[in-house]
Amino acid sequence: MKPVFVLNGPNLNLLGLREPAVYGSATLKDVEARCRAHAATLGLAIDFRQSNNEGELVGWIHEARDKASGIAINAGAYTHTSVALHDALKAADLPSVEVHLSNVHKREAFRHHSYMAPAVNGVICGFGTESYVLALTALHSLLTANKKG
Amino acid sequence: MKPVFVLNGPNLNLLGLREPAVYGSATLKDVEARCRAHAATLGLAIDFRQSNNEGELVGWIHEARDKASGIAINAGAYTHTSVALHDALKAADLPSVEVHLSNVHKREAFRHHSYMAPAVNGVICGFGTESYVLALTALHSLLTANKKG
Amino acid sequence: MKPVFVLNGPNLNLLGLREPAVYGSATLKDVEARCRAHAATLGLAIDFRQSNNEGELVGWIHEARDKASGIAINAGAYTHTSVALHDALKAADLPSVEVHLSNVHKREAFRHHSYMAPAVNGVICGFGTESYVLALTALHSLLTANKKG
Amino acid sequence: MKPVFVLNGPNLNLLGLREPAVYGSATLKDVEARCRAHAATLGLAIDFRQSNNEGELVGWIHEARDKASGIAINAGAYTHTSVALHDALKAADLPSVEVHLSNVHKREAFRHHSYMAPAVNGVICGFGTESYVLALTALHSLLTANKKG
Amino acid sequence: MKPVFVLNGPNLNLLGLREPAVYGSATLKDVEARCRAHAATLGLAIDFRQSNNEGELVGWIHEARDKASGIAINAGAYTHTSVALHDALKAADLPSVEVHLSNVHKREAFRHHSYMAPAVNGVICGFGTESYVLALTALHSLLTANKKG
Amino acid sequence: MKPVFVLNGPNLNLLGLREPAVYGSATLKDVEARCRAHAATLGLAIDFRQSNNEGELVGWIHEARDKASGIAINAGAYTHTSVALHDALKAADLPSVEVHLSNVHKREAFRHHSYMAPAVNGVICGFGTESYVLALTALHSLLTANKKG
Amino acid sequence: MKPVFVLNGPNLNLLGLREPAVYGSATLKDVEARCRAHAATLGLAIDFRQSNNEGELVGWIHEARDKASGIAINAGAYTHTSVALHDALKAADLPSVEVHLSNVHKREAFRHHSYMAPAVNGVICGFGTESYVLALTALHSLLTANKKG
Amino acid sequence: MKPVFVLNGPNLNLLGLREPAVYGSATLKDVEARCRAHAATLGLAIDFRQSNNEGELVGWIHEARDKASGIAINAGAYTHTSVALHDALKAADLPSVEVHLSNVHKREAFRHHSYMAPAVNGVICGFGTESYVLALTALHSLLTANKKG
Amino acid sequence: MKPVFVLNGPNLNLLGLREPAVYGSATLKDVEARCRAHAATLGLAIDFRQSNNEGELVGWIHEARDKASGIAINAGAYTHTSVALHDALKAADLPSVEVHLSNVHKREAFRHHSYMAPAVNGVICGFGTESYVLALTALHSLLTANKKG
Amino acid sequence: MKPVFVLNGPNLNLLGLREPAVYGSATLKDVEARCRAHAATLGLAIDFRQSNNEGELVGWIHEARDKASGIAINAGAYTHTSVALHDALKAADLPSVEVHLSNVHKREAFRHHSYMAPAVNGVICGFGTESYVLALTALHSLLTANKKG
Amino acid sequence: MKPVFVLNGPNLNLLGLREPAVYGSATLKDVEARCRAHAATLGLAIDFRQSNNEGELVGWIHEARDKASGIAINAGAYTHTSVALHDALKAADLPSVEVHLSNVHKREAFRHHSYMAPAVNGVICGFGTESYVLALTALHSLLTANKKG
Amino acid sequence: MKPVFVLNGPNLNLLGLREPAVYGSATLKDVEARCRAHAATLGLAIDFRQSNNEGELVGWIHEARDKASGIAINAGAYTHTSVALHDALKAADLPSVEVHLSNVHKREAFRHHSYMAPAVNGVICGFGTESYVLALTALHSLLTANKKG
Repeated sequence: MKPVFVLNGPNLNLLGLREPAVYGSATLKDVEARCRAHAATLGLAIDFRQSNNEGELVGWIHEARDKASGIAINAGAYTHTSVALHDALKAADLPSVEVHLSNVHKREAFRHHSYMAPAVNGVICGFGTESYVLALTALHSLLTANKKG
Repeated sequence: MKPVFVLNGPNLNLLGLREPAVYGSATLKDVEARCRAHAATLGLAIDFRQSNNEGELVGWIHEARDKASGIAINAGAYTHTSVALHDALKAADLPSVEVHLSNVHKREAFRHHSYMAPAVNGVICGFGTESYVLALTALHSLLTANKKG
Repeated sequence: MKPVFVLNGPNLNLLGLREPAVYGSATLKDVEARCRAHAATLGLAIDFRQSNNEGELVGWIHEARDKASGIAINAGAYTHTSVALHDALKAADLPSVEVHLSNVHKREAFRHHSYMAPAVNGVICGFGTESYVLALTALHSLLTANKKG
Repeated sequence: MKPVFVLNGPNLNLLGLREPAVYGSATLKDVEARCRAHAATLGLAIDFRQSNNEGELVGWIHEARDKASGIAINAGAYTHTSVALHDALKAADLPSVEVHLSNVHKREAFRHHSYMAPAVNGVICGFGTESYVLALTALHSLLTANKKG
Repeated sequence: MKPVFVLNGPNLNLLGLREPAVYGSATLKDVEARCRAHAATLGLAIDFRQSNNEGELVGWIHEARDKASGIAINAGAYTHTSVALHDALKAADLPSVEVHLSNVHKREAFRHHSYMAPAVNGVICGFGTESYVLALTALHSLLTANKKG
Repeated sequence: MKPVFVLNGPNLNLLGLREPAVYGSATLKDVEARCRAHAATLGLAIDFRQSNNEGELVGWIHEARDKASGIAINAGAYTHTSVALHDALKAADLPSVEVHLSNVHKREAFRHHSYMAPAVNGVICGFGTESYVLALTALHSLLTANKKG
Repeated sequence: MKPVFVLNGPNLNLLGLREPAVYGSATLKDVEARCRAHAATLGLAIDFRQSNNEGELVGWIHEARDKASGIAINAGAYTHTSVALHDALKAADLPSVEVHLSNVHKREAFRHHSYMAPAVNGVICGFGTESYVLALTALHSLLTANKKG
Repeated sequence: MKPVFVLNGPNLNLLGLREPAVYGSATLKDVEARCRAHAATLGLAIDFRQSNNEGELVGWIHEARDKASGIAINAGAYTHTSVALHDALKAADLPSVEVHLSNVHKREAFRHHSYMAPAVNGVICGFGTESYVLALTALHSLLTANKKG
Repeated sequence: MKPVFVLNGPNLNLLGLREPAVYGSATLKDVEARCRAHAATLGLAIDFRQSNNEGELVGWIHEARDKASGIAINAGAYTHTSVALHDALKAADLPSVEVHLSNVHKREAFRHHSYMAPAVNGVICGFGTESYVLALTALHSLLTANKKG
Repeated sequence: MKPVFVLNGPNLNLLGLREPAVYGSATLKDVEARCRAHAATLGLAIDFRQSNNEGELVGWIHEARDKASGIAINAGAYTHTSVALHDALKAADLPSVEVHLSNVHKREAFRHHSYMAPAVNGVICGFGTESYVLALTALHSLLTANKKG
Repeated sequence: MKPVFVLNGPNLNLLGLREPAVYGSATLKDVEARCRAHAATLGLAIDFRQSNNEGELVGWIHEARDKASGIAINAGAYTHTSVALHDALKAADLPSVEVHLSNVHKREAFRHHSYMAPAVNGVICGFGTESYVLALTALHSLLTANKKG
Repeated sequence: MKPVFVLNGPNLNLLGLREPAVYGSATLKDVEARCRAHAATLGLAIDFRQSNNEGELVGWIHEARDKASGIAINAGAYTHTSVALHDALKAADLPSVEVHLSNVHKREAFRHHSYMAPAVNGVICGFGTESYVLALTALHSLLTANKKG
């Protein structure tokens, strides 16, 4: 079975280092490890990546069309500005979940709108690292139920 | 240990009967059964309720202050209009999750804003009945991590 | 044949007593009598109710799913604020008409938007008690033409 | 007694030919016939006209000041853009009704605002040809009750 | 002489328990006691109530038409969302005062607009329990001056 | 010397008949007579016209390019909606004045914006028939000063 | 084969005379000649018209339903204000192209929105007379490909 | 003990002379006398001033930092436009009350926003001269409770 | 007979010196001389003043209540920001005219709104010094016709 | 002669694979072939490229300053969000055309605004692959007419 | 050589006393001393003033036309509300710099817009007293480069 | 001591070549040389870079966390669109300055908002190359004063 792509956008490489009051103290490595462990319990493989580059993220979603069974994406700041990622996700046509560590609705107004949300199956935000774990569980049940994006 | 309150707002009593293309064919009874089963695996008790009445939902959240360990709330249409529920959730100061069956961001513009979101720990939407299951899992980990709302 | 529900929202119990310059001097009893008389000429039964409570109105629309052949609704102030009634009307999936005594477009800007309008077959406003009479006639022809909401 | 003017705006000459899913299959001739028949039962004469020209419609409303007892107007697209028709209706100072075949509130946002509505007694929309029939009935009762526009 | 109704909206039953930094530590019982004591000095009787239910508050304002000489209302969250309470206050046509414990203008933007304000004689906010005392004094002078709402 | 065109838009033919509280009791004939008398004192000829038809007004402005020395225009309701008249006035490139009988800034918000204003030399409003007299004086001094539109 | 209608809106009769810096020095006759020559090379007949009158343009589009194989329309100022032309184009249901001489996006904000655009197959603007030539080529390929409007 | 400053903004010197239907017939002298009498009962001294000059009002608030125990301010028209007064009040850091004679929420939309409100302890409006009396009472209890602005 | 006040706001003392392309080369002295000469022909006395100070302008309008028969005001930049001048003009209740040298509608968007316009009889703008001359003529006919502001 | 750059933005590499109902079944290779064939008939060379990376597209436009005679750009999703591409096109100062396969005005509101449009000579959208062919023809005539961007 | 005017707006006289967390602990005297010292090193004389009065600030800018070589202005709260100061700065036509102690973009939304910015050469904000030092350096280089405002 | 990063965004590599009327004739090399010379006088080392790629700029700011003592950033077009750079600057938590060559407030409205401004210590714009010099001076004093971003 094809792996699930877990894609991370700009500044997420600084996780644990940057504003821990907002994002928690776990590093992206920690998040990846937690995801791998949880994926194993679900019988899923994951391909975990991070990029600060909008174009590279678009490319990875294209790659997912052939190589992935589903997508969990925390597009970071691009969540709020990238029509290109929106289009890529719609084109991918795979089970997909938008994830955020923080509850974006408690933050600045410009973080309340998501271009990802209308292009994915569902959204999970506000649970820190646990948001990723829940997203994998959600993808697992979408895959089991054989749902498209 | 105190149960988790799973609160459902207006029209959710019609689940399975109303617009199945949007909300799926499971009834609220089915959702409750699925929640109970999953809660059992997490060692959680649940108190599952529905009301069409904003004031009654406010009252249940007040009741939760003493009687519940956490709240999962699908406020239905009140999500988008009720400052009263927002205030009640902030006053409750309990681990709490906003849940939606459908991906509200794919629907009418007036469903894109939530008064619940900034008053809860996190949001889960778009996975049908599975949204509730994920919400219980999320509450479980909030309780384990000893987090407040 | 099932009756038509004629549902009246908040403050309509004060009809005839409140701001007669805007709403006329007929009481809600008068309106009901006028409706009953007109319904009789159309061969329709009516179930005429009033509530100040949004949740109760939602419940009556749910009840209509089984017990009514159509709905005429003057949601009063909830017209402009209630997504819950919008959802209930869509779920009811019955021939339905929005009614107003006054011409809401001549009044304050916050009365120009209706959450009911996109969830019903048609709208009639501005003719005083006669609006209700016209609504019953309209429902009658929707029923005759076998149209859904 | 003077006739009621039934005025139809741009594109309504295509009725029955254009987008039947939205506007139904009745032609404007059919609507006129239905109006004449119904008017006869009410003891009203009607003068039924259509124009694609805003200025001509303005002129007809001016003409109505002397020659008509009331106005039913479906201004079509001019409903949403014509301050000139608004002013003409206010100047006419006759019992008047805005009519629409379709429920404009279920359509594009630019069709939700009406310049006619605040210049007439009342509004009827969403009942197809029946909207005209209801409008004539409404005008009849306005005339009976001796109401001005 | 008829009593003054002092009406309290949603969540005010939690006063003293909820966010004391915003609302102070006095409970609603304390506020009621303070009101009673002050009313006595003014020679006013009061009828002090609280409800989380918009419809019930609407009903109490209707009841006030016959049974009260004036109204002091802290509609809580409904202040910002309830056209129904606005309409009820206008229909009541009694001397009336909008009261708030906190200075709502220092809080979230959605608390800056009040549907109550244009339907009452005046507004008092920001003085904690003392806001109620001032409101009673204000009502007393409105009653003395024989002013309507 | 070429005459000045004094152009009047929709509904101005009803002047004196329509809403005299807003527009005064002088008829358009009276205004024309007053203009002729005043023009004579200025040594100006005038060509005074009225149309309810936007296209005809556009055509008259085109005609003015060859046949007129300047334009005074009261576009009535088209003031607020007609980009076509704006374009025609810019193309005319003649001394030109926007005129209104009433003070449009005291009326509905939709009358506060003018598409004419940025396409003419100046604006005069609020002085009843005298607005036209002032406009002719203004055109006279623009012509004397040899100013373009 | 039926001709293509090339329809021109208000003020385009002044082409070459009006603001040549914006619209170029070619007259409408020149544009027509250029269109005829190009149409000949494509094997298309054209019917080239201009009107300042919105209603007449609406009528020509209606006429096109029977007499034309496609429509190229430069609605001039009506582009930005005419819902009536929008509706007529949708009703025409023919291959159709919106044309502009100038690049409207470099001009005033009120020229950035087009009511024509969502009712036609495509848009071409900014190439002066060449815009018309391209529009005919585009219509030719729409006709060849047998596409509807 | 230091006096309370009672500051009045532009046009308040015309009180009693200007629009008595809105502002009542009491002059500013009457208001001052009423304030002095009431202040005496509270054991407060007052310093009562009026200026049409924004800068002078700013200066008086600065002066209050040293010489006043609290501020009651009716900034008149500057309420809605003056960031400078907002900043001065925040800098003053004294118990302070915004006062209005009329209920500004019943008037033009541009009077609904106050730059004073978020910079003071509380707001009192709509009770005519009595608003000032209530404001002094409010200041007295703020001073007694030892609260800052 | 009392003189007419001709009031000039901020920066108008620089007339002739500042941006002559916008405001012309006449100085304020020149404008005053032109006004005096024209007023003489009308049999009017004028009191011509300029201030950069909003409060002083407010005071002059107050003074006009007793000492002037009418007001012509070019409030300069305060036109767009001063609610205080709006209130003063309404309180003055005298025949009054808003004047501008330039056509403000051809300039920045923030100059398109006027707080003066709804508080005066009429507006004249865009004719340079001649705007003042026209304003005096307008005031003269308002005085002759015995009209209030 | 230098070639024309035909630049394609994000997700266009998926052409033919992604949402064929919107974008057609031709692949980007097909479009390129069609362009090459058509360019040959015009005597133009083309350099056809695609990138998902905003920065790379900016760089290619810079490169065009030296190496290209003109630019046809379909910036895909960056059309609506990229000020950087806008600036690059303005800096390039070459004949340039914005191209879209679909009629963006029939799609989501966020696709109606283009940052490219005010920085190019003209826009062509809605004709599928034919849009590119028309763009090359347009560029050819811009080059022939020796026009700058 | 003429001095540089360093102009300070409302409330800046309280510097060091008012909200030191926002504005720092330096007084305006300290800022003036720092400016004098730095100006000396640049060979500039300065004239350092503060006023709470908009009109006085306007007058000082007028005075600068003759007496100053450049202007550094911290208009305080008037930055966000004063079109009069904007006009005065444009009229002054001198090298000029807008200065702020705090980073206004980190504060309330109403402080994000500046009427000064489009009327000066450049803006410096966020460096406390150092902002003034940088502004003098900037003015010095503008003067050296012989640039106008 | 670590160097200061001077980061330049898209299109700045074209400096001196592109729109010299807006950006001046100095090339980026010239700006770098001017910065190096000035930095030397301040005892600062600088690392001067330019990229058209948002992701690369994000990466450089991350790199700055370890390798730089401060950041001066001219993000070019990304200033107005990049939440990712905003987040990176907040995460960097270094003394930082936003720089612009031109006075962005004199340009298009879409250049008036900056996502950088609330994430840096201060802003300097409008002084051409000198803006960079001032930014280095500003950074130097921030470093001396030991301030964080």
